[in-house]
Amino acid sequence: MFNFTVTDPEPGGGQARCGMLTTPHGTIRTPAFVPVGTKGSIKGLWPEQVRDSGAEIILANTYHLCQRPGAELIEQLGGLHTFMGWDGPILTDSGGYQVFSLAELNKITDEGVTFRSHMDGQYVHLDPASAIEIQNHLGADIIMAFDQCPPGHADRSEVTRAVERTVRWAQKCREAHRRSEQALFAIVQGGVFHELRQACARQLIAMDFPGYAVGGLSVGEPHEQMVEVLTELVPTLPADRPRYLMGVGKPRDLLAAVRVGIDLFDCVLPTRHGRNACAFTATGTLKLRNEKYRRQSGPLEPGCPCPVCQKFSRGYLRHLFGVREMLGPILVSLHNLWFFQRFMARLRDLIPSGDWATMRAEFPIAGGTGIGNDNMDRGGLCE
Amino acid sequence: MFNFTVTDPEPGGGQARCGMLTTPHGTIRTPAFVPVGTKGSIKGLWPEQVRDSGAEIILANTYHLCQRPGAELIEQLGGLHTFMGWDGPILTDSGGYQVFSLAELNKITDEGVTFRSHMDGQYVHLDPASAIEIQNHLGADIIMAFDQCPPGHADRSEVTRAVERTVRWAQKCREAHRRSEQALFAIVQGGVFHELRQACARQLIAMDFPGYAVGGLSVGEPHEQMVEVLTELVPTLPADRPRYLMGVGKPRDLLAAVRVGIDLFDCVLPTRHGRNACAFTATGTLKLRNEKYRRQSGPLEPGCPCPVCQKFSRGYLRHLFGVREMLGPILVSLHNLWFFQRFMARLRDLIPSGDWATMRAEFPIAGGTGIGNDNMDRGGLCE
Repeated sequence: MFNFTVTDPEPGGGQARCGMLTTPHGTIRTPAFVPVGTKGSIKGLWPEQVRDSGAEIILANTYHLCQRPGAELIEQLGGLHTFMGWDGPILTDSGGYQVFSLAELNKITDEGVTFRSHMDGQYVHLDPASAIEIQNHLGADIIMAFDQCPPGHADRSEVTRAVERTVRWAQKCREAHRRSEQALFAIVQGGVFHELRQACARQLIAMDFPGYAVGGLSVGEPHEQMVEVLTELVPTLPADRPRYLMGVGKPRDLLAAVRVGIDLFDCVLPTRHGRNACAFTATGTLKLRNEKYRRQSGPLEPGCPCPVCQKFSRGYLRHLFGVREMLGPILVSLHNLWFFQRFMARLRDLIPSGDWATMRAEFPIAGGTGIGNDNMDRGGLCE
Repeated sequence: MFNFTVTDPEPGGGQARCGMLTTPHGTIRTPAFVPVGTKGSIKGLWPEQVRDSGAEIILANTYHLCQRPGAELIEQLGGLHTFMGWDGPILTDSGGYQVFSLAELNKITDEGVTFRSHMDGQYVHLDPASAIEIQNHLGADIIMAFDQCPPGHADRSEVTRAVERTVRWAQKCREAHRRSEQALFAIVQGGVFHELRQACARQLIAMDFPGYAVGGLSVGEPHEQMVEVLTELVPTLPADRPRYLMGVGKPRDLLAAVRVGIDLFDCVLPTRHGRNACAFTATGTLKLRNEKYRRQSGPLEPGCPCPVCQKFSRGYLRHLFGVREMLGPILVSLHNLWFFQRFMARLRDLIPSGDWATMRAEFPIAGGTGIGNDNMDRGGLCE
């Protein structure tokens, strides 16, 4: 029920590849961008609209869903696919990232993590077995091992300890996993330390997971450093397994990561920016609150085939944000999802020829001069 | 370009009627319910979704739009239809109701009203000529005369003065109106005083408007009193002109008003209640925040053909409100619009036979025992 095939490798020794990832709920063309439905919905959008944007898989967050409404309730209501009204493939993360970034940590041991819920202040324990049990209840097509994601500024000894735990926990996750139709991916940690990344990858590869993720990047390090880590690490991951870069990213991150062999990405950027009146276009982002858009009757992006650009002017969209109408965030979120899917589709078109110059020409935003200029970093926005 | 035809009068001397109202942007089957797009969008919904719910005409508020983004800007961006992405008929109100209910009034004279904007505190003057000029800029199919709507508790002398002004202003509106393709409706005021209503109607009828609205009801008076006023007033309005009851209402108000001969209604109820987790069904309203819906896997209303009931469970909808996901208000607003349109369609089905017993049997909510029990009055909610 789970299968990954590389269909078109980049010619001339490049690392990029096109593939097909088959899951019980459908096949995903890779490289693929996975929209994020943190609490069981892609914010403001109908599943059908997400599908029409070109998305073939979505992500939901275990940490949030297990706090509300609870994984067992979701199972009783028919599982995550039925609950959300999305009949395509779903990926759930393990909760590890949110535990270490959102929760007020109480105690981390080799056994697991105790934390105070950011929701109701209750103490909650999460460990490899319970993280997998929760994901078995949710029923996604791809589930993730429970890892320890150290903060971006962590030193070598802290990252070493996180890698050791991540490896040990990966083994426990395998043992706890009860539903063979769900593919369990391992997560490689190791921060920006190459030897730690290599050591982590080597041990996880020995356990033979059906897919490998790279965690702990895009946590504040510069783009160049992220690319450096990926360039060394990704080619050492099994070529016949899907490779997933978690929580990334901006168009130029996606382009760079695809070029070193990444197949899957998830990120809140299109919807979060959309809610904040920031629209993606091939040449850069538009901040719609800017006065200059007030009288503009044209679409967000000329030539964009999305339903927003077919119908609404920049002037109207700016007005919606000006008067705080819900439809503003809705429309720009959808446009942004279309943009990200269009970007990935074009990457898939060009991988078989390895024509990166065309990609950069069509999407200046990915060439390092676009999105970098808008000064919006993840921390300045809310989701 | 503007025409109204009564196609099916209620048999046996009843006052209800089915009709066809033709405007430059399309024909509306009456009795019709007009969803409200206060600031240029039906909150949270795409125009296409509103259309698919069965709506054939929508309303936008002159008062809000002339403050932001401004009527001239909307005209520059192609007029209200293009601006909102709605190519069907549109009705704009005159701003009178909002000036008298929302704004901090500064001075009312026989010439017009000066008020401080609720938005930026600026002084704004509105009078019959400017209210029509603004509506001419917006370009709706049906526009409304600038009236004085007295508060629900106003005494006879205050209402008398409002009626005198409303009549005088109606004449000025006719004179100011510049776009013949827009039908200008007059508004009958007079509070709960029958002679004042009759006097107001008589003078407005003498001016020969293409349609007549009833204003100043549903402003706090009991249902029975509203019906009493309508029962005396509506049959005196020209039978060959559309009759529009402004700002109404709940299902049983709609049923009662249709029975005395009203053809058009507008109300924020479906969307406002939808945003507040309150769903309409034939048997009453559901408050989705209630714990009892947590584990319910069925739809909001069994048998409802709307896209929400086709796909999502009560448990999921409750969850969305619990975690404050935008999709909750979106989905319940759309279900409610479908409910109101389904209600009107069934009324249109049954008018030719005058079978009110069937209507009440199919919609207990309109029989006086449903919506009346939910204790949600307009004042307790925000739009």
